[in-house]
Amino acid sequence: MTDTFALLSGERFTVVYRLACSEAEAWERAAAICREQTAELPLDLLPSDEIWDQIVGRIESLSPLPDGCFEAKISYAVEVAGTELPQLLNMVFGKVSLIPGVRVERLELSPGLLKPFKGPRFGRAGLRAYLEAPHRPLLAATLKPMGLPASELAQLAFQFALGGIDIIQDATTLADQRLAPFEERVERCTEAVARANQVTGGRSIYMPNVTATAYEVMERALLAREVGAGGLLICPGITGFDVMRLLAGNDDINLPIMAHPAFLGSFVANPVQGISPYALFGQIMRLAGADATSYPDWGDCSSFDRETCQSIAEGCGAAMGGLRTSFPAPEAEINRDRVPELYETYGREMIVVLGGSLYSRGPNLAENACYFREILA
Amino acid sequence: MTDTFALLSGERFTVVYRLACSEAEAWERAAAICREQTAELPLDLLPSDEIWDQIVGRIESLSPLPDGCFEAKISYAVEVAGTELPQLLNMVFGKVSLIPGVRVERLELSPGLLKPFKGPRFGRAGLRAYLEAPHRPLLAATLKPMGLPASELAQLAFQFALGGIDIIQDATTLADQRLAPFEERVERCTEAVARANQVTGGRSIYMPNVTATAYEVMERALLAREVGAGGLLICPGITGFDVMRLLAGNDDINLPIMAHPAFLGSFVANPVQGISPYALFGQIMRLAGADATSYPDWGDCSSFDRETCQSIAEGCGAAMGGLRTSFPAPEAEINRDRVPELYETYGREMIVVLGGSLYSRGPNLAENACYFREILA
Repeated sequence: MTDTFALLSGERFTVVYRLACSEAEAWERAAAICREQTAELPLDLLPSDEIWDQIVGRIESLSPLPDGCFEAKISYAVEVAGTELPQLLNMVFGKVSLIPGVRVERLELSPGLLKPFKGPRFGRAGLRAYLEAPHRPLLAATLKPMGLPASELAQLAFQFALGGIDIIQDATTLADQRLAPFEERVERCTEAVARANQVTGGRSIYMPNVTATAYEVMERALLAREVGAGGLLICPGITGFDVMRLLAGNDDINLPIMAHPAFLGSFVANPVQGISPYALFGQIMRLAGADATSYPDWGDCSSFDRETCQSIAEGCGAAMGGLRTSFPAPEAEINRDRVPELYETYGREMIVVLGGSLYSRGPNLAENACYFREILA
Repeated sequence: MTDTFALLSGERFTVVYRLACSEAEAWERAAAICREQTAELPLDLLPSDEIWDQIVGRIESLSPLPDGCFEAKISYAVEVAGTELPQLLNMVFGKVSLIPGVRVERLELSPGLLKPFKGPRFGRAGLRAYLEAPHRPLLAATLKPMGLPASELAQLAFQFALGGIDIIQDATTLADQRLAPFEERVERCTEAVARANQVTGGRSIYMPNVTATAYEVMERALLAREVGAGGLLICPGITGFDVMRLLAGNDDINLPIMAHPAFLGSFVANPVQGISPYALFGQIMRLAGADATSYPDWGDCSSFDRETCQSIAEGCGAAMGGLRTSFPAPEAEINRDRVPELYETYGREMIVVLGGSLYSRGPNLAENACYFREILA
């Protein structure tokens, strides 16, 4: 046993949980988290004191929150998480996800734990340099509806690039269906955006959706790179976060990544269960290599309020070892009146993913795009 | 346009959603699902009537439920989902996961949609044949705590196999940490179980946890196969469901798969948001190739009640095209008194994953295992 524990460095990382229960229950629940995420056995069944000391999570603090919940800071030995993202996710919210009334609020990751993670390849500064847009907020548009053939999606892409949209991304519903097969779509849309760039002298990029069957993700990303696409869209909730991390880390691909929240809504639907938007869309997406992370902006029938959106932006920008920051990418309907509050919330460090109004404002999509770029500038 | 739509077969599949809202809102919300999962544009912005007719989801029925919620049956053209699991998951609960008050109750998948899916490789009958246990309920034990070296985990495995446990699985906290590295653990535990089988004449198997970085999953599974492990444990919520499907479909691996619910708790934490346990642990796990799916049994601090557990068993066994059935694998503390209600709930078609009492009943683990096998028989 001694040999095993000699491997432990003593370095720990912390997960901050919100517990929805009474104070008495809070201590019990925190203890259950410490146990269930690690040894999965009660104290009296542990085969050695060292496992209690070194392996089982440790309650660093437990304090009441203004809303009646409790905040538990629980630390774990970094070796418990190992060096892989899947096991880190499992440590943070694996079995605990099945305990009622527990939400991960934020991660406080130590240098040794962060070391194997490269995070976003471009990050905010890198993406700005890549898009030759050093200061202004960025704009994204979504190619839709599903049902259009690749040639018509490419026409949309051309119009949006002509109008100065920085990032033109597939709708996540566009996969590799026969209606607009992936390869044809990537070729046509990439070509269309390049053609528009020649007209404008701009640096718009097309981001195909590479969400797919596990190995296909990498193949499609390599194809996209080969064809000349400027970035990648992926839904890590569907592919697994680690697949996105592999994409981001691949030198042959070397493209910026936009993460989409599809399939992840349940994690953030409940203030007392799941993972906070700050931790999920900010911290975890960055660990997994997203250069930008999109989510529904507040307003309309969004489940997020303004404060939540702001917290996502904070998670995208907060210090996290040497990891690059990422862009918050709110999907929003904007107009002149809304622009000030967007700036107030995000500053210039945002990618606004334009909603249906990009399509509805008038028949000329390039003009619509121009208009939104102008009011945001 | 006509060419594109000539590709559509007219075959449709249905997703049954539970909507938590008033009747007036229910129609609106159902329409939002139809739209947001497909065209992502309102009717008046669709470029053609065919997209409305063929691509946008269709409300087949909307009816009140006894609890005040509404049940919406929404159908989609099979071509919209394509032939890949990631896109099917996206169709079922992609953007919709971000709409408040929507839960997927069940999937009604058509033959054409199911065609590309092989489902569980073994299924109930196959796993029973493989374990040479044609009739009785099966028993599983979990190797823990993390912190034990591989040699001591192997000793536990030996004891459990000696006591007649059918499936001896890693705790999901065991990944590839230095405390008990994957390769050494698989070799030692596999050998220990084989040695016990020689003593008993039984057919116990060891299932290492292959949850890992995307490509590593397959490598570890192949290593496990090579070493002679009898099955695989995986957390598809962490790796992505499609990674499990690839494992199940791989002829070189050819091992039964136990799916663990780690990281998936948020999907099933809320009766009016997420995915029903029936659909998630039953239907989706089968689509993704699980031969057995574990979950916390009712009682104690479980978030599941008995009815929910029963519904999971139903999802594991319900007709789904030609897909094999899977085993419900409740993680339970059992004793003589509980056995009748387990039979009432699951019949013999269950794998009972024994909890801490396997460790706590007495110092001789093989005897403990024997005892539980006896009271369950």
